[in-house]
Amino acid sequence: MTTRQDCLALDASDPLARLREQFTLPEGKIYLDGNSLGALPRATPQRVAQVVEQEWGEQLIESWNTAGWIDLPQRIGDKIARLVGTDAGELVVADSTSVNLFKVLSAALTIAKADAPARRVILSERGNFPTDLYIAEGLAKERGCELVLTASPDEIGSHLASSRVAVMMLTQVDYKSGRVHDMAALTRMAHDHGTLALWDLAHSAGALPVALEAAGADFAVGCGYKYLNGGPGAPAFVWAHPRHAERFWQPLSGWMGHAAPFDFTPSYRPAAGIARYLCGTPALLSMAALECGVDSVLAAEPLGGMAALRRKSLALTDLFITLVEARCGDQGLTVITPHEHALRGSQVALAREEGAYRIVQALIARGVVGDFRAPEVLRFGFTPLYTRFIDVWDAVEHLRQVLDSGEWREPRFNRKAAVT
Amino acid sequence: MTTRQDCLALDASDPLARLREQFTLPEGKIYLDGNSLGALPRATPQRVAQVVEQEWGEQLIESWNTAGWIDLPQRIGDKIARLVGTDAGELVVADSTSVNLFKVLSAALTIAKADAPARRVILSERGNFPTDLYIAEGLAKERGCELVLTASPDEIGSHLASSRVAVMMLTQVDYKSGRVHDMAALTRMAHDHGTLALWDLAHSAGALPVALEAAGADFAVGCGYKYLNGGPGAPAFVWAHPRHAERFWQPLSGWMGHAAPFDFTPSYRPAAGIARYLCGTPALLSMAALECGVDSVLAAEPLGGMAALRRKSLALTDLFITLVEARCGDQGLTVITPHEHALRGSQVALAREEGAYRIVQALIARGVVGDFRAPEVLRFGFTPLYTRFIDVWDAVEHLRQVLDSGEWREPRFNRKAAVT
Repeated sequence: MTTRQDCLALDASDPLARLREQFTLPEGKIYLDGNSLGALPRATPQRVAQVVEQEWGEQLIESWNTAGWIDLPQRIGDKIARLVGTDAGELVVADSTSVNLFKVLSAALTIAKADAPARRVILSERGNFPTDLYIAEGLAKERGCELVLTASPDEIGSHLASSRVAVMMLTQVDYKSGRVHDMAALTRMAHDHGTLALWDLAHSAGALPVALEAAGADFAVGCGYKYLNGGPGAPAFVWAHPRHAERFWQPLSGWMGHAAPFDFTPSYRPAAGIARYLCGTPALLSMAALECGVDSVLAAEPLGGMAALRRKSLALTDLFITLVEARCGDQGLTVITPHEHALRGSQVALAREEGAYRIVQALIARGVVGDFRAPEVLRFGFTPLYTRFIDVWDAVEHLRQVLDSGEWREPRFNRKAAVT
Repeated sequence: MTTRQDCLALDASDPLARLREQFTLPEGKIYLDGNSLGALPRATPQRVAQVVEQEWGEQLIESWNTAGWIDLPQRIGDKIARLVGTDAGELVVADSTSVNLFKVLSAALTIAKADAPARRVILSERGNFPTDLYIAEGLAKERGCELVLTASPDEIGSHLASSRVAVMMLTQVDYKSGRVHDMAALTRMAHDHGTLALWDLAHSAGALPVALEAAGADFAVGCGYKYLNGGPGAPAFVWAHPRHAERFWQPLSGWMGHAAPFDFTPSYRPAAGIARYLCGTPALLSMAALECGVDSVLAAEPLGGMAALRRKSLALTDLFITLVEARCGDQGLTVITPHEHALRGSQVALAREEGAYRIVQALIARGVVGDFRAPEVLRFGFTPLYTRFIDVWDAVEHLRQVLDSGEWREPRFNRKAAVT
């Protein structure tokens, strides 16, 4: 059985260990919630201060040119492209994941209407992240389409076989269970049935290797504030396969997506390629922080990049699962994240009959930050850039103590926060 | 004739003069472009650093509750409401102006379709800010509506009388000429003809008193980075009159607009009131900066608020117009901003047969920052919070020298920047 000493040894021999030095991590906390909000890179405060104090404060409006503000959506997009298997120039940073999903799902429905007008179904999973479902629900209403939600991934194939599905819209890594879809296989299956494949990479980008182009995916969106460490509410990203990018406008046809935004012509003329998926003026301070976050992931490239990060991520989650099962096995916890590597994201979720919320609160009180997801799930994210093996050991030890002692039953852990 | 000494005296006796101390303004520059990007409030760097270093860096995900992140869109919205004549709880900060315009124009078209299905026209002006026209063009295409653009404000009445107009979409202050629409009169005229009135307040909020509720307006959007000093790409705001707010979903039905976003239910249930106009996770760093900017405007409240700022703004633009006409009157410049106070925003635009771009560049080289707008317009913004009378005098003196000397004809002023 692995000991605490073994974990220290794993950290000591970990070739990625020094990547942690890129981050400011609060003293006395074990932060296992980077899948909700990534930690702060050390480079970020200074970079944001530079944008605020010099670029905005001193150079003011000239910074659109002199500081390259106008190029940021594409410049950061090119960096993210390296993490998700697309080429530079094919992906841009803009808006929020929800807004970007609206753009690409609209575009996908427009393409489907042109190519296969009889197909009127958006297929997704009942367990998909709610904002994806809400956006799809709104668009389905607007376009007279039907949103069909499967209860289990096993049902996707039979729905696709119905020949009614215009777009299959899936999140590669389930936000709650951490289960991973086989993007290449599902995309192939969708295409075999004449369906477009749209992927949300919220819990994938920066967490595991993604190969959008190799998988032949049609559209993708992703989040900047989870594994990309871009800061709270960081702008999101959007990708359309080059075979689609110029076929249509996306409906949020704002000036930043115009071919010549500063010509101020009254008619819209979409920019070439993915740039037409830009809309309004980007939130520059948040953009600047996102770039630092993306750079913190790219810093792994000389050490093996996403493949190396993935190996460490799986080692961390393997260890967590093994220790939970060995040390808390009699406490009613069920590991709902798949044991199989190919099916596991960079997080582990534990279900329990009752008490999940209070157990999470008791852990937070001890400095172990995971989160709760309804109905009774404890969720722990393992960001290989900064999570150590010793953190895993200590987190499980705290979990064991919280459960063994019954301290989670104390009334103070029962107060619901607005955001859980 | 006013002298430089007179201007110094005007500043010395200006009751609003000390509001300028709120801002970091670059040494040696006369900044007359606050209508494009407001100056940096002194409070902003520290507040942004606090959000980055403490709220994100130390408290991490807990800041959604402990630092009140979740309440920011409404909290800042309540502050902006005081500047545009609406009640607290009726206006929220979210996304960009373009994205918000998509939301309210969609909602307006949906309402019009229900109440007056024969009306299929969106009416706007050919000179409206392009992103507004692009968003309307996209929506018109999507909804099978027609976008009709008037060449002059005088034509608006006859179009409304046609009984074909579903929504009149206007920007209160023209971005180029600075001409102001009479919001109350035009809204009344629109309503008399069964048309909804949607207002873009990009160059109004923080620049002049706005009375959305008193005017009976239906929808409004506005910009955070101009006269609200929120920083580059600051989030925008959106308002729907309470009589409309709950009639329909807006189409960007993301989780932040859900009645209970953290219940993670698969079906969308819109939040009460204007909160349903939120969509994705807000860009927190940019939001925090926006709040400082809005506070810089609210700081005028004890000194007479927007009415006092408006008086100073008109005094500044009166002075600029008078000095330009007196001192540069033989240089082919035409003041295209209305001389009549009721029709003038907080900026002055000058047209010329030729050379506008190069004259602006020559002024920038001398530290006088205005901007160029095609085809041949020099645009100068006067933010009463931080522009002094002496700045106006000095700016006109530089303009006179640039024109008299002919230095603007030097080749170095002919290089086009990407953003102009």
